[in-house]
Amino acid sequence: MKIIIVGATGTMGKHLSNAFEKDHEIIRVSSSGGDIQADITSLESIENLFEQVGAFDALISTAGPSYVGPWKHMTDKEFRKGIEGKLMGQVNLVLIGQRYIEPKGSFTLISGALASDPQLNFANAAAANGAIEAFVRAAAIELEDGVRINAVSPTVIEDSPQYFPYFPGEIPVSMKQLEYGFRKSVFGANTGQVIIPY
Amino acid sequence: MKIIIVGATGTMGKHLSNAFEKDHEIIRVSSSGGDIQADITSLESIENLFEQVGAFDALISTAGPSYVGPWKHMTDKEFRKGIEGKLMGQVNLVLIGQRYIEPKGSFTLISGALASDPQLNFANAAAANGAIEAFVRAAAIELEDGVRINAVSPTVIEDSPQYFPYFPGEIPVSMKQLEYGFRKSVFGANTGQVIIPY
Repeated sequence: MKIIIVGATGTMGKHLSNAFEKDHEIIRVSSSGGDIQADITSLESIENLFEQVGAFDALISTAGPSYVGPWKHMTDKEFRKGIEGKLMGQVNLVLIGQRYIEPKGSFTLISGALASDPQLNFANAAAANGAIEAFVRAAAIELEDGVRINAVSPTVIEDSPQYFPYFPGEIPVSMKQLEYGFRKSVFGANTGQVIIPY
Repeated sequence: MKIIIVGATGTMGKHLSNAFEKDHEIIRVSSSGGDIQADITSLESIENLFEQVGAFDALISTAGPSYVGPWKHMTDKEFRKGIEGKLMGQVNLVLIGQRYIEPKGSFTLISGALASDPQLNFANAAAANGAIEAFVRAAAIELEDGVRINAVSPTVIEDSPQYFPYFPGEIPVSMKQLEYGFRKSVFGANTGQVIIPY
């Protein structure tokens, strides 16, 4: 399978690239580094990405910039970070990528437990996650040629201990659990699902 | 109670304005018409709105422009309609309005069943709704001075029969049910809730 991993140099993307490269052709995409550089907040950059890759079987996105910080400093400007990044960046990967994906291919986006289970400082990520989860359900009934779409929705992840203090009471998701969530989406048959890997 | 109703000249806003004006001071806000004209996609217009109204007890938003139409015509451009309108418009009403609201005041935003229960042609509204529902949960744990926030999430509404063909199998929400959903948010004590008025 030819699998595009967007956010391939991040904590999740690195793990997934390594896990899947034994059996599949992996195209590592990142804002800097990887096989192809792409900025998912730019439509032109996303078009260039798909032009370079051509037809593919699966796209995994682990790319989700959003504003993390005190509510009292949050204005429209800060909120745009998650809207342009985690939300529209991923939506545009699907809206544009659907023209290049093989029949029965799949999109797997990254959401997060904050959509239903908020923590202080993360209202922007929460909103982006909620949008992605609803988008995935809606897009699943629109995509043609058997193309599937799901989201994986972890809580704080094992290999990002710098975030642990922001998630009191959350048991971190192990990298293996996370990987299995993505495996279910990419290699399973489900669509329109929010996969909770714990 | 001094209640701002944004979208006051629309189907929902008109009903709510009429229902609540017997016992409360209603400020009707609309893009054209009403007591005050405001464009919720403009930060300046939202600031002007609150400057004119001053302190208030409750804000109800029924304003949710989004793109309705075939998936195959949906690009970034169409998707922005719901992002700027139903999502960021409502988010900014809260981010700015929190500086003007009275202690123990409330924000009630409009979401919709499409967040969890999609229909063809509505992926944009679905995403905006999902974002609003997650935002409400996240903002509820951030807002200070006892200020509350909820969303009301109807399916297609009784007085908008032009939408019935797009919602096969959905029993329309009556205007009274819708009104009661908003009553629960404005006059109740709950916060961070998605109120399903049916």
